[in-house]
Amino acid sequence: MSVVRVDLEAPENRAKAIRREADEPRSQLVKFGPDKPLRLDAGVDLSPFQIAYMTYGELNARKSNAILVCHALSGDQYVASEHPVTKKPGWGETLIGPGKPIDTNRYFVICSNVLGGCMGTTGPASRDPKTGEPYGLSLPVVTIRDMVRAQAMLLDHLGINTLLCVTGGSMGGMQALQWAVSYPERAFAVLPLATAARHSAQNIAFHEVGRQAVMADPEWRNGRYLVEGRNPSRGLAVARMAAHITYLSDAALHRKFGRQLQDRQALTFGFDADFQVESYLRHQGSSFVDRFDANSYLYITRAMDYFDLAGEHGGVLANAFKGTRSRFCVVSFTSDWLFPTSDARQIVHALNASGASVSFAEIETDKGHDAFLLDEPELFAITRGFLESAARSRGL
Amino acid sequence: MSVVRVDLEAPENRAKAIRREADEPRSQLVKFGPDKPLRLDAGVDLSPFQIAYMTYGELNARKSNAILVCHALSGDQYVASEHPVTKKPGWGETLIGPGKPIDTNRYFVICSNVLGGCMGTTGPASRDPKTGEPYGLSLPVVTIRDMVRAQAMLLDHLGINTLLCVTGGSMGGMQALQWAVSYPERAFAVLPLATAARHSAQNIAFHEVGRQAVMADPEWRNGRYLVEGRNPSRGLAVARMAAHITYLSDAALHRKFGRQLQDRQALTFGFDADFQVESYLRHQGSSFVDRFDANSYLYITRAMDYFDLAGEHGGVLANAFKGTRSRFCVVSFTSDWLFPTSDARQIVHALNASGASVSFAEIETDKGHDAFLLDEPELFAITRGFLESAARSRGL
Repeated sequence: MSVVRVDLEAPENRAKAIRREADEPRSQLVKFGPDKPLRLDAGVDLSPFQIAYMTYGELNARKSNAILVCHALSGDQYVASEHPVTKKPGWGETLIGPGKPIDTNRYFVICSNVLGGCMGTTGPASRDPKTGEPYGLSLPVVTIRDMVRAQAMLLDHLGINTLLCVTGGSMGGMQALQWAVSYPERAFAVLPLATAARHSAQNIAFHEVGRQAVMADPEWRNGRYLVEGRNPSRGLAVARMAAHITYLSDAALHRKFGRQLQDRQALTFGFDADFQVESYLRHQGSSFVDRFDANSYLYITRAMDYFDLAGEHGGVLANAFKGTRSRFCVVSFTSDWLFPTSDARQIVHALNASGASVSFAEIETDKGHDAFLLDEPELFAITRGFLESAARSRGL
Repeated sequence: MSVVRVDLEAPENRAKAIRREADEPRSQLVKFGPDKPLRLDAGVDLSPFQIAYMTYGELNARKSNAILVCHALSGDQYVASEHPVTKKPGWGETLIGPGKPIDTNRYFVICSNVLGGCMGTTGPASRDPKTGEPYGLSLPVVTIRDMVRAQAMLLDHLGINTLLCVTGGSMGGMQALQWAVSYPERAFAVLPLATAARHSAQNIAFHEVGRQAVMADPEWRNGRYLVEGRNPSRGLAVARMAAHITYLSDAALHRKFGRQLQDRQALTFGFDADFQVESYLRHQGSSFVDRFDANSYLYITRAMDYFDLAGEHGGVLANAFKGTRSRFCVVSFTSDWLFPTSDARQIVHALNASGASVSFAEIETDKGHDAFLLDEPELFAITRGFLESAARSRGL
């Protein structure tokens, strides 16, 4: 018996591994055939399509202990397990796992890769069955509502009618809010973190910079880079670098790096990464392109730009939540300037106006937007308490 | 006699016009020969070199009414007159001109293109006399202190010993502060706007994104694009787009654009500029590359990154201003998140600690960092009052 060892560190193998995940993910997978098309907001049906997902813990007999965790822009279904390509721990392991605030000893946790993603759910890197080639830009633009519609089909497949809770941060929070609006009877509790009911002009602007960086890369080839065996990695790295700054706070960057130099005693009077913060950002850019598809980046940022819950309801956000019986807990972070507390307050005001049960916590931290992914004891306590209360009310 | 009309709108003519300005600017010009080298912080002498500048108003007999206006990253010497290539009004015409707060009927205003710039002062687009080709990256990296050293040589050339005032916003404010430190006896009054005594980690990070965007463009050719007849315009446009967001505030973007669509009634489910803010940003990017040199962008952002007045003085900012007899007025804007009021406070505290005469104004506005360039009545009143007081004290 011969064993072939694959060196995952080699860039060409990384690229192959990532491409394989888009069609044949190592996670669980459900395929929807022509009989079950996904109706998209763009006005077309997507069929066939597939959803890649992970589950943790056990679904109880009454199927009443399921929690859907929705991931953010650059996340995936590996919320509490090692990423199959990067071999890094799950992105949500601080919050989710046995004994953790989202306790997988107690709850059945589901996390699916979003529609438009690149880790196994249908997205622009997936093979279009009609052509046998990756979709690229021939995939219709998708919305947060489309992502949630696909997740609802996954729940149907799993035989789960009503979630105990739907939660997520940033774009994950948008999905949680969309759940409360699209399927209010299916979400007993809703826990949106560091998010907004509509993407702001400034945030659309930052996304547009990222997309322009990708599309300015000649290797992007009008989105056909996979077919042509190329990769707009430099453009995507620049996009990620710009975005990454917005996930942190000025204070966190100052605390972590300040003006400290990178492995040198003095300025070099050149364009190398003299400062630690430059070196850190470059690393963020280059490690991202190892695990993410550039077209997925375009599609998912676009979905966030298009998100506007009030817009779907005559411009009045409270109307979106009219008659909801879900209970809500809305969380923001003081140093988050991408989704500032004022965004959370708009959600809370609308929920109050619609007579919903809502609590609100603004957590004091200097960690910026990314705080929802980090070690934040107050977030942990709030999450644990909110879920326990919901579980009690549901007779768990 | 035949008249050849040049269509400045044609991109190739714009490119030629910009290239000509780098060596033969339409403004005033002083050339320093081998007898007067500029000693750079990088440890080398730059020689020969030249400074392009504009003056407005008349120098009085005592040469006591001169005000040096220092420009920001993307500015130039055309502070109060039409730009020779874009034909747009001067960038500082709200503040500077006959009867304006910096009154050219009363004061002699000097504005020079910074060292490393591309409008006639020696920079990477200038012809290196040793090779006959543009410097590109063979020009040493320059600092804010180098820029100020060059300005001091310009003042020597003009026969002006002591400025009535040195002022500027953003990088212009850095130069004003550097004047107070390098040549305290030559600056009677100092008026730094929307600036800091050191570039923050977040600001270095944003600059690094811009540089990476330029350098990721294959047309950049390791900085040799001018020699090779290319132009990294897509990379520079992305850099400018990212930077432009930081010059505004979330509130200003919301007020100006919100989520309004651009010349359309509904979302197009594509990657065109659906939103006005996207269209606006793209315009900012494309119009910038028509008038700016990509390598200059690298050099000037680097100069700002390197700026750290306290660092030059044992980490204690007050030491930088020790014994100063200049009078200061420091101005910040409430919605400026690039150079927030906390940065201005650090300067004011250090000036107070060093016993300097200093006043401080934080102006309430939602216009963000760019407020120093805009129609801000409170800024106008402060500038007028501070200059009048300085002029009176100097017996004008």
